[in-house]
Amino acid sequence: MDKKERELVFEKAKAFVNEAGQQIREKIDHPRTIETKSNANDLVTEMDQKTEEFFAESIRDEFPEHKLFGEEGFGHDIKDLNGVVWIVDPIDGTMNFVHQKRNFAISVGVYADGVGEIGIIYDVMQDVLYTAVRGEGAYKNEVKLAELTNQRLLVQSIIGLNTTWLIPENPYVNHNKLLDLVKKIRSTRSYGSAALELAYIAEGVMDGYLTMSLMPWDVAAGKIIVNEVGGLVTTADGKDIDMLNRTTMLASHPRIHSEVIRNFVELKK
Amino acid sequence: MDKKERELVFEKAKAFVNEAGQQIREKIDHPRTIETKSNANDLVTEMDQKTEEFFAESIRDEFPEHKLFGEEGFGHDIKDLNGVVWIVDPIDGTMNFVHQKRNFAISVGVYADGVGEIGIIYDVMQDVLYTAVRGEGAYKNEVKLAELTNQRLLVQSIIGLNTTWLIPENPYVNHNKLLDLVKKIRSTRSYGSAALELAYIAEGVMDGYLTMSLMPWDVAAGKIIVNEVGGLVTTADGKDIDMLNRTTMLASHPRIHSEVIRNFVELKK
Repeated sequence: MDKKERELVFEKAKAFVNEAGQQIREKIDHPRTIETKSNANDLVTEMDQKTEEFFAESIRDEFPEHKLFGEEGFGHDIKDLNGVVWIVDPIDGTMNFVHQKRNFAISVGVYADGVGEIGIIYDVMQDVLYTAVRGEGAYKNEVKLAELTNQRLLVQSIIGLNTTWLIPENPYVNHNKLLDLVKKIRSTRSYGSAALELAYIAEGVMDGYLTMSLMPWDVAAGKIIVNEVGGLVTTADGKDIDMLNRTTMLASHPRIHSEVIRNFVELKK
Repeated sequence: MDKKERELVFEKAKAFVNEAGQQIREKIDHPRTIETKSNANDLVTEMDQKTEEFFAESIRDEFPEHKLFGEEGFGHDIKDLNGVVWIVDPIDGTMNFVHQKRNFAISVGVYADGVGEIGIIYDVMQDVLYTAVRGEGAYKNEVKLAELTNQRLLVQSIIGLNTTWLIPENPYVNHNKLLDLVKKIRSTRSYGSAALELAYIAEGVMDGYLTMSLMPWDVAAGKIIVNEVGGLVTTADGKDIDMLNRTTMLASHPRIHSEVIRNFVELKK
């Protein structure tokens, strides 16, 4: 994707996000939960579906050769990342959307032949837009975010970590080593939206975020934004993220990344 | 405290909080950490101290017969709650203040002969003011908060719970029973400010908040606010909060309170 095309896609993507955000805000007091998905706590609402449908139609109208990889089924049947693929979560943090009516985001990552070109995370209720274009840095609204340099030691760090992964029977990770991490660091936080937690790392509000189960649309935009400020985003054992399948993830500033993986993450398989 | 006096104190307390919040916002980019307290992660900044000093002086000037019970040592040596006592946390969530420059609050509870009369929690960076006057309901800015009725079942609940309490060696609580709670409920969150987490319960954004170690100034305001919308605030084993000493706490909407205590909290002493 050349610079001119990237700039055009970026402008359109921001416009789609802003319009979708406006529609969500107008209906925030009536979030019709219509079903749960894989389990009773995996919520989906009419608004998730309508928003993805809006993206599907908007992308098809403006960029008919682009593809959409999304959560709700309005996109393409994506088998590879050839060409331009929009990886979209219409509402990242649906549980927060339903319960809290805030703390959720629209997440849009645009990949060209597998390379992350554009990342947009929109905190809809706060009206805060995090963006990055590959090679041009990351922004919070109009303000360029600083590089993640000279960050804290691990003992001074705040890491995003949900209590779920501390359940001994969880199928992903040795909970005892995560408990060692909890004891080592300054504190943990849990906000319930992977996209926002990635944005928070990019702005230095958290030093890392560790999770065992994300889908590509949860991480596609955030990875680009975190990378653009010098942060690292890998699987929890340090490999490249597979943007086609379910994945673990460690995102953090570079000073602590390898230490967390080496000393505190032991995957079960 | 009669209604007229309560109204006067409430107006002055809000004025103090707004002025203190303004001063904090002006200095937010220079949060001078000057020491740690009981341990390396218990931070205190010059701003905590300056803000408490401002409250001490303001209360002394306006209500010389009132007492101040605070964290930073500018208040009185409080042995009982006789008379009118302002229980103040100048910055609740100091770690957030230092690391995040947001997600902290000024917390002011006014007690008369041990009865909670006025609660104020001010989310300084969001400029959101949660207030309650005993018997008159609770407000978020100018909007009256709804009663916590017809709330969710425990399996549908979001509970504030930090990973700290899941460490097996923690001195307070059986971590295995808390893990059962994590498995039972919909999800947990952790925001790093007890005052704000109490405010979130009052507005229905979380259904409960369970913690093993708070000081009176962390809970004094929030208890009044949560009580005014019909929520319950007790120790983690269901007793009255002791507003003079360190305490455990379960705050929640009434439907789940006794179930959490009965089935998921086993204190170690």
